[in-house]
Amino acid sequence: MLVNDRVKPYLLKARYGLEKESKRVDLSGNLAKTDHPKSISRRDDHPYIQRDFSELQMEIITPVTETLEELFNYLAAIHDVAYRSMGINEMLWPLSMPPQLPEDEENIVIAKLKSVEDVRYREYLSDSYGRRKQMLCGVHFNFEFSDEFIQALFNAQLEIKDYRDFKTEIYLKATRNYLHYRWLFTYFYGASPSSEKNFFKEDSLNHAVRSIRSSKYGYTNSDDVQVSYSSIQNYLSDLSSMVKRGLLSKEKEFYSPVRLRGGQHVSDLVDQGIRYIELRNIDLNPFEPYGIGYEQAEFLHLFLIYLLWKDEGENCDEWVKMGDYYNDVVALEHPLEHTKFEKEAKNIIDEMKHLVEILDLTTSDTLFVHLKEMLEDPSKTLSGKLYKESQKNSQSQVASLIAKENYNKSWGKPYQLAGFTDMELSTQILMFDAIQQGIQVEILDRQDQFLKLKLKDHVEYVKNGNMTSKDNYVSTLIMENKTVTKKILHQHGFRVPKGEEFQTIEQALRSYHLFSSKPFVVKPKTTNYGLGISIFKEGANYEDYQKALTLAFKEDSSVLIEEFIKGTEYRFFVLNDQVYAVLLRIPANVIGDGKHTIQELVMQKNRDSLRGSDHRTPLESIQLGELEKLMLKSQGYQINSIPKKDEIIYLRENSNISTGGDSIDVTDQIPDDYKKIAVDAVSALRVKICGIDLIIENTEVPATNQNAYGIIEANFNPSMYMHIYPYQGESRRLTMHIIHYLFPELLQSQSN
Amino acid sequence: MLVNDRVKPYLLKARYGLEKESKRVDLSGNLAKTDHPKSISRRDDHPYIQRDFSELQMEIITPVTETLEELFNYLAAIHDVAYRSMGINEMLWPLSMPPQLPEDEENIVIAKLKSVEDVRYREYLSDSYGRRKQMLCGVHFNFEFSDEFIQALFNAQLEIKDYRDFKTEIYLKATRNYLHYRWLFTYFYGASPSSEKNFFKEDSLNHAVRSIRSSKYGYTNSDDVQVSYSSIQNYLSDLSSMVKRGLLSKEKEFYSPVRLRGGQHVSDLVDQGIRYIELRNIDLNPFEPYGIGYEQAEFLHLFLIYLLWKDEGENCDEWVKMGDYYNDVVALEHPLEHTKFEKEAKNIIDEMKHLVEILDLTTSDTLFVHLKEMLEDPSKTLSGKLYKESQKNSQSQVASLIAKENYNKSWGKPYQLAGFTDMELSTQILMFDAIQQGIQVEILDRQDQFLKLKLKDHVEYVKNGNMTSKDNYVSTLIMENKTVTKKILHQHGFRVPKGEEFQTIEQALRSYHLFSSKPFVVKPKTTNYGLGISIFKEGANYEDYQKALTLAFKEDSSVLIEEFIKGTEYRFFVLNDQVYAVLLRIPANVIGDGKHTIQELVMQKNRDSLRGSDHRTPLESIQLGELEKLMLKSQGYQINSIPKKDEIIYLRENSNISTGGDSIDVTDQIPDDYKKIAVDAVSALRVKICGIDLIIENTEVPATNQNAYGIIEANFNPSMYMHIYPYQGESRRLTMHIIHYLFPELLQSQSN
Repeated sequence: MLVNDRVKPYLLKARYGLEKESKRVDLSGNLAKTDHPKSISRRDDHPYIQRDFSELQMEIITPVTETLEELFNYLAAIHDVAYRSMGINEMLWPLSMPPQLPEDEENIVIAKLKSVEDVRYREYLSDSYGRRKQMLCGVHFNFEFSDEFIQALFNAQLEIKDYRDFKTEIYLKATRNYLHYRWLFTYFYGASPSSEKNFFKEDSLNHAVRSIRSSKYGYTNSDDVQVSYSSIQNYLSDLSSMVKRGLLSKEKEFYSPVRLRGGQHVSDLVDQGIRYIELRNIDLNPFEPYGIGYEQAEFLHLFLIYLLWKDEGENCDEWVKMGDYYNDVVALEHPLEHTKFEKEAKNIIDEMKHLVEILDLTTSDTLFVHLKEMLEDPSKTLSGKLYKESQKNSQSQVASLIAKENYNKSWGKPYQLAGFTDMELSTQILMFDAIQQGIQVEILDRQDQFLKLKLKDHVEYVKNGNMTSKDNYVSTLIMENKTVTKKILHQHGFRVPKGEEFQTIEQALRSYHLFSSKPFVVKPKTTNYGLGISIFKEGANYEDYQKALTLAFKEDSSVLIEEFIKGTEYRFFVLNDQVYAVLLRIPANVIGDGKHTIQELVMQKNRDSLRGSDHRTPLESIQLGELEKLMLKSQGYQINSIPKKDEIIYLRENSNISTGGDSIDVTDQIPDDYKKIAVDAVSALRVKICGIDLIIENTEVPATNQNAYGIIEANFNPSMYMHIYPYQGESRRLTMHIIHYLFPELLQSQSN
Repeated sequence: MLVNDRVKPYLLKARYGLEKESKRVDLSGNLAKTDHPKSISRRDDHPYIQRDFSELQMEIITPVTETLEELFNYLAAIHDVAYRSMGINEMLWPLSMPPQLPEDEENIVIAKLKSVEDVRYREYLSDSYGRRKQMLCGVHFNFEFSDEFIQALFNAQLEIKDYRDFKTEIYLKATRNYLHYRWLFTYFYGASPSSEKNFFKEDSLNHAVRSIRSSKYGYTNSDDVQVSYSSIQNYLSDLSSMVKRGLLSKEKEFYSPVRLRGGQHVSDLVDQGIRYIELRNIDLNPFEPYGIGYEQAEFLHLFLIYLLWKDEGENCDEWVKMGDYYNDVVALEHPLEHTKFEKEAKNIIDEMKHLVEILDLTTSDTLFVHLKEMLEDPSKTLSGKLYKESQKNSQSQVASLIAKENYNKSWGKPYQLAGFTDMELSTQILMFDAIQQGIQVEILDRQDQFLKLKLKDHVEYVKNGNMTSKDNYVSTLIMENKTVTKKILHQHGFRVPKGEEFQTIEQALRSYHLFSSKPFVVKPKTTNYGLGISIFKEGANYEDYQKALTLAFKEDSSVLIEEFIKGTEYRFFVLNDQVYAVLLRIPANVIGDGKHTIQELVMQKNRDSLRGSDHRTPLESIQLGELEKLMLKSQGYQINSIPKKDEIIYLRENSNISTGGDSIDVTDQIPDDYKKIAVDAVSALRVKICGIDLIIENTEVPATNQNAYGIIEANFNPSMYMHIYPYQGESRRLTMHIIHYLFPELLQSQSN
């Protein structure tokens, strides 16, 4: 049936979701003694980061995605948020097996949840299984075949008339076969060979294995708990009988390697049939930064297709039981030993490969190569590799090193959000903050930086970090049009540079006396890279005026002559009638030390991790191109000149961050009256989120003085990252302010 | 002082404003018996169109402008609004002198204003001067030198220390000289040579003159009213003494040819000095559609500069009085007679011309040519011309013909707004409606269609006719992004075409079975002019599928395959959760008559005044280019084929209005449930003003049926004019709905 042409296109379509538990540890690898990080919204229903059994057990939950790429992007991103929310003194333990536990297991702190019921359930688990067992961590992989796929299969058969029944049958078959053949997964990806001190009360297990967690020593129900997968009815009635008989406190206590899912609750299965399955027998993969590898997930998807295709045994309960036995055998084999079922394993891999070929499936090139290698050389399996590395030292040291590596990765470029580093920096930071605050983030268009943010029923759309529903349409169009902006600001009594537009040089020459004695700028109406601009800070004589006009008219048929406003330009970031940040931008520069050349000083300065290229870092690297060399030349320098100690050498005329300029936060230094000007001007434009540029000659002079300031422009999508990661001065977390502006209920719930 | 280099650049800078009265008449030229048009907002404080003394006297008021071009644009536009608001049975009388008046002057109806005081004042005027005199109409020209100009003059002298005093002196000198020399203006532009029946009780004046209105037979105060222009103090004290002595009822009854203005009220002069002057001795120019010509206004500006430069007599009261005398002489000369002051006139014109040269002023090329001609040949003056033409027939018939011409001009293209025909059509219509509703319209950026609308303190900005403050920013960005729009609509349960995107032809070929059996479209992700698009309405075989892909990949590296939704496409115009118009667009076509060729039929159809080019008409002309010829060929026709009677020949595949398509209003034919879909979809996008395109297979089928409709796209700046001037069906005045949406207080005040 799978080979059917109407089925094939949908085979690799699916929906995925991951949950991944791990333990917080300190930088030495000891269990953390701290509470769940406060910076993560304290809601217990956080969609991405929760506590599991213990307060120090962090569970990372991805949203449901339709591709594995997306799944791993979210996994990476949520890890970044988790790491940086935990603070610089903690890391995540990369193993399923916990580090050394306290002797008295009562010292393992149960998660401090608000719900009494949730806490009581954990206390019950603690009593039934002991707290040590609860410290095992792993990955749960939620998998749903695409509806089109099942629909196509359904249409290709006649046996089962009801679509929902058919779908349930599909999942039941995949599940039974998965339970039967899961030893294969344990062989390849089992990764809990040894335990640390105090995990077992006695040394129940005295040799290394492939997976303690997946074996009978792991986290399993009592042997009396037996549930049939022969039909959904049997499954449900068995489950409920287990609960009735007191073998389980509730259905969710059933720790099968595969859980059948109808929705949020077990009871959903009755009405909805099986909608997806949850694979739970996955050890944390220590060699992957997020506990599971992409190839591993790909393997699981292919494996499930294979298992759907593969015939199963006649007695299905027996078939599943055999699987438990095989799995225990493989799980308890020594990690460097060849598996007892090597031949069967080879067979399955060959069949899977064949299936991939006849079904035209695309997979990673290396997947089957790696599987073959691991089969031939057990030291290349996860458990084998971990065991081998641990031999050199100790498993706990290996784990600590890996944890530190992941920690460094997350902290190395704290402005990035892993998984989404191709997106604009401000959007990455906004997504970080949204995830931290427990807001669901959906990417509607990645290239277009288009997000959907959701908190309960409240949905907000955001583009480019701060284009939101809070601003009205025409106000942004006003800001887009410099002439209109100036007109409106002028009508409201703000000072903007006065200007005149000319179409001919004669016309402009005739107006010489309009400008001659005051500071003014001559510029083409549309200007690229500042070409054709002349600035006369002290007025100009007729000859220079004429030259400037000739220069400008070379670039455009319209030339503007504008009043030049003297002073320093400041960027005010205004949000909802409040100034949240003021930034001073300084042209690209280096400071001499009397020893190094300008080129060396530039290289030194560029080494800062805040500098990079393409606006994917808060600051741009300083270039040493034509313009910079020209600028140096005009000061009598070359790139190999050695400036004196403390001498500041400017490499650019313009102060843009994008050409290597420095950003300096001066929010606290700017007097309130200038902030009021910024707020009032933005309000005159009827804008809520705005970056407005003021030129101020002297901030000590009251803003109400005549010509104390001039407004240059108002920007409707102002850069935020430069305020968040300035070169100097305090960081202003504007993205968080945006989030609180969009979701004011967050502040309310926090103050409650 | 004027020749000073610092003064010169500002000489032609000024602020202007016009008021122009005229009488409403019926199409035969008889005084209208109707009330002031109801379609003009009934507010008596309408900024543009008011009633003067009589109910049938319409006063058109321009805003203050900074160029004469702008002034005449507004004058033209307000005239268009006045004409079309009066309705098709009325016109405006083009002469200062009224048409035949009723024998009993009590039949001249006083303006039915709401203010008791305003009506009482008119009754007083009726008693003092008689209602006949009140029927004289003219133009008032408000003129203000630019502040920079006066400032520059002020800086170039030392005598007067106070700037306001200096300014007042400037205006006083110009005024006195204007009063002295105004006979020159009367000679050139006087235009009330004869009266009609019943204007004079007896035939007081038995020969034709240059200007009855500017003469002592015109609208003047009694001879006892004497006011000095020697200083502002004397002017004010004389005025108030006239009122005290009962010679004037209030200051505004002082009918001087020049009124000094400080602001709205005479009392403003005390505090503010003179801010501008109002020239009132201007007869309606019958040869200009708006009562005054551009050159005439230009003359006034230059004349005022000249008068500022020209020395005045020593005794200034005497000087003014002499002017009254000269003016009366000239006004009462026969229109074809050379003036007694020809030599003096020639002298002044020569001096003016010289001044223009030494001051580098730019003027219309023809101004001085015309002045010279008029001086040499009195029949070329306005009164001469009118008198001569009236000789052939009667003055009243000449006036009626002129009125009819103006009337035709305004009604010929009712979708245009004179003065602003270069702007987008929807913006022109919106401006029309705004002016009609008494909303002040300021153009912030003409090329950018950027308007400021103001009603009392309420300001709204509008770009492109319907980009307003009512829509939020991110929603318009959603609509701009088709992928995001589709995602959100889909998430809200609306049907949108399902699609897949492919980067390689192999990938797309592999998905053949995803589409093969259903209707679908293959298209390049970004498409120009429909290149590379293939539509398969019944699915496709593999070969055709492959061909379509090859074609599409030639145009773009990304190709979309999208479900094709069958049916007819309708444009729903949704405003604030309500459907105001539904339009069906039909490809360019002609209907055969069995006689004419296709080319002839196209020419015939294009003759419709609704058709034109460049979106400056509601419909576009049908072209006969490559594409049309190809389309004809595919049907077995050529452009000189003669189609059968009633045969419909399509010339285009696409139904765009911009390629000659027909627009058909079907608002009343579309069932409510489809309108609800449109409203709900727009609301899901959180949009207030939207043109949303639905494909409906059969409007008789309930919209809730599966696949009853599909949403193609949502447009954030939907065209409005095509609904207002459809090819067939009812007009939907969407611009008026926009105005009422922006200014809901208009509806409230109307219902009061």
